[in-house]
Amino acid sequence: MSDTVILKGTIIHTPTKDQFEYYENSYLVAVDNVIKGIYKELPKEYEKEEVKDYGDKLIMPGMCDMHVHAPQYVYRGLGLDLQLMQWLETYAFPTESRFSDMEYAKNYYEAFADALAKNGTTRAVIFSTIHVPSTGLLMEILEKKRIGGYVGKVNMDTLCPDSLREDSEQSLKDTREWLIEWKDKLSLVKPAITPRFIPTCSTTVLKGLGELVKEFDVPVHSHISEDIGEMEIVRERYPQIDHDGAVYDQFGLLTNHTVMAHFIYPTDEELTLIKERGVTIAHCPQSNGNVAAGIPPIRKMLNMGIKTGLGSDIAGGYSPCIFRAMSEAVYLSKLKWLDTGKEDMFLSIPEAFYLGTKGGGQFFGKVGSFETGYELDALVIDDSSLGTILDELSVIERMERVIHLADDRNIVARYVAGVEA
Amino acid sequence: MSDTVILKGTIIHTPTKDQFEYYENSYLVAVDNVIKGIYKELPKEYEKEEVKDYGDKLIMPGMCDMHVHAPQYVYRGLGLDLQLMQWLETYAFPTESRFSDMEYAKNYYEAFADALAKNGTTRAVIFSTIHVPSTGLLMEILEKKRIGGYVGKVNMDTLCPDSLREDSEQSLKDTREWLIEWKDKLSLVKPAITPRFIPTCSTTVLKGLGELVKEFDVPVHSHISEDIGEMEIVRERYPQIDHDGAVYDQFGLLTNHTVMAHFIYPTDEELTLIKERGVTIAHCPQSNGNVAAGIPPIRKMLNMGIKTGLGSDIAGGYSPCIFRAMSEAVYLSKLKWLDTGKEDMFLSIPEAFYLGTKGGGQFFGKVGSFETGYELDALVIDDSSLGTILDELSVIERMERVIHLADDRNIVARYVAGVEA
Repeated sequence: MSDTVILKGTIIHTPTKDQFEYYENSYLVAVDNVIKGIYKELPKEYEKEEVKDYGDKLIMPGMCDMHVHAPQYVYRGLGLDLQLMQWLETYAFPTESRFSDMEYAKNYYEAFADALAKNGTTRAVIFSTIHVPSTGLLMEILEKKRIGGYVGKVNMDTLCPDSLREDSEQSLKDTREWLIEWKDKLSLVKPAITPRFIPTCSTTVLKGLGELVKEFDVPVHSHISEDIGEMEIVRERYPQIDHDGAVYDQFGLLTNHTVMAHFIYPTDEELTLIKERGVTIAHCPQSNGNVAAGIPPIRKMLNMGIKTGLGSDIAGGYSPCIFRAMSEAVYLSKLKWLDTGKEDMFLSIPEAFYLGTKGGGQFFGKVGSFETGYELDALVIDDSSLGTILDELSVIERMERVIHLADDRNIVARYVAGVEA
Repeated sequence: MSDTVILKGTIIHTPTKDQFEYYENSYLVAVDNVIKGIYKELPKEYEKEEVKDYGDKLIMPGMCDMHVHAPQYVYRGLGLDLQLMQWLETYAFPTESRFSDMEYAKNYYEAFADALAKNGTTRAVIFSTIHVPSTGLLMEILEKKRIGGYVGKVNMDTLCPDSLREDSEQSLKDTREWLIEWKDKLSLVKPAITPRFIPTCSTTVLKGLGELVKEFDVPVHSHISEDIGEMEIVRERYPQIDHDGAVYDQFGLLTNHTVMAHFIYPTDEELTLIKERGVTIAHCPQSNGNVAAGIPPIRKMLNMGIKTGLGSDIAGGYSPCIFRAMSEAVYLSKLKWLDTGKEDMFLSIPEAFYLGTKGGGQFFGKVGSFETGYELDALVIDDSSLGTILDELSVIERMERVIHLADDRNIVARYVAGVEA
């Protein structure tokens, strides 16, 4: 028995980053989670299948959150007029310490997963904490609520509070056992190697994690060249190495299944390295301003063909909604445009949409687009509450307005890997 | 018969910009729209009055939107990857032209007023269009829905499409008649002199408007030093005058009841002039990025004691919610902090709250604070949906989270000038 899903409505996606493609009054057909096509008339072979008719509602690919800290959902929206180190010490570290408590973890990880789901995220790359048991719990919760992607037990063994500092060897041993247990346990949710960032990881740990990447062929997720202060620490520790990218690379942590968040201050050489290794960059515009890090050269990265997606970076960002990240990516790119003497052209709306869907989606396989052969991750959007001139708008204008104005109320159905969830 | 309103809950405001003051389980008492005090125990004289008990919900001053274009609500969230002139030509001018049609105006002005009300705005300074009849209609709608403030029939007689270009003398004549009719017609809503901005107003119109300001003693509302392109036009037209501020000033348009939006590129001399004249600046952080204008030196203005409030600048901004403006003012100020080599310290959360309440509120009289003698503009906020650790948060943390995360769902009651609305 094959499992056929047919959605009818106004179908919109971005197979290429430069423009929307849309199909009014059309059928999106997937069989066994493989998209067969978009049709104006339903092909005969599907005539007896059930059609989910969403009228003229918008049907778009699910959104991908390429960088998010699950435990930090607890304190989102707090301390955002502190400077980064104060904020980590006041909120991040004390909160993360509490995830040794499974009851505490259950409550907050459920709330986190619910927030992602209701805000339209279908796939995500997620930091948990150093704690193996609650990391496993998070993975199970995500699987159950159908948020696909990668979760990382965090590694940190230096420059951090005692309550979160791991013994270097134990950190690697725990990670290895966790990989063995979880690599193939779930269907939608898999493990990723997740060093917190270079400052909190000793050379022993970074080296050991690189070996685990090779042994288990798993993805990598971390932060790169985010902040001047962070970069200074790395330069001091590795005076012979020019940039964060080269440090990760020397330990084998840059692969074509690595995602690195931020990349605000890359050198030209570092950009080239990231491009050559096939690394994906997670752009987190809300967090870039909130933690006063700066504005990354996204236009430059896109021009170079560097793979790029969007992240909420909860709780450096306070909103779990990738629509907000799309809108704010355009906003921030306009300030970059001014900063670069109007050289780095700001992002267009389809580009921002592409980054939040297919741009990140490629990290999970054929995800983030409705092209034939892709998995079926879809959102159904009711935009009727967003304004009173709906009948006069083009489909592209409707989509644009959704990006800026929609919230969880406008997301009325959600499909992940071929299943409504 | 005096009209007494007593609200009970967790009362919070910013009498000074540097810190929140709050009162748990307390009574806020107003008689005939004059606040008498905040009390832990209800004074005997009010014992027989009705108490609106909001439990531990937050009770805060109403928010003030110091710069918003009512007709542009029609197309909010559209065209925000266009450059400013394209955007004006594609959306702003064609839409504004339609407000000669009273039926069209009624629909959209009702929707606009509803959006402001449900998003917590109690007072606003508002652009309409050049059209006198629909401007009057907007004023009546606002009065009915209890949004206090000032509305401006717009003046523009040059550098604009034919459909919106007024004859200079007719523009002044219309404005004069409109002032006579509306100056004292309504209780909450009054007229303001509103030249669109210097480029679209001839010297004849600016001079005539200055005379009307003197004759009728009414406020002024416009844009100032927003954009490099705009400023170049002004420099060409008035080569002997150094900055926008001095142009307005020469026509008597800078008074202590003038509000000017943006002020992104002020010179030191212009800052001093604005301070001396007692002008209020409307800071519109969402719009500053959306229209790629730049980041104003808000810290510098606050240090100089320049009166400052926040604006949504619909539809340069897409959100009518001043909570968003508060959050984004902090965000944008962090990028300014980086731009100025960390010299212009970013805004604190109480400062942003102050700007959105009392900072703008002073323009309307004693508004935007719960100090004794102030008018009663209040919002009741139910923040229970915003997170799951509510019981562990301080009142200030709760307020901070509301600023970043709340939307219209969290605003459960609204009082304007002493009346629930």
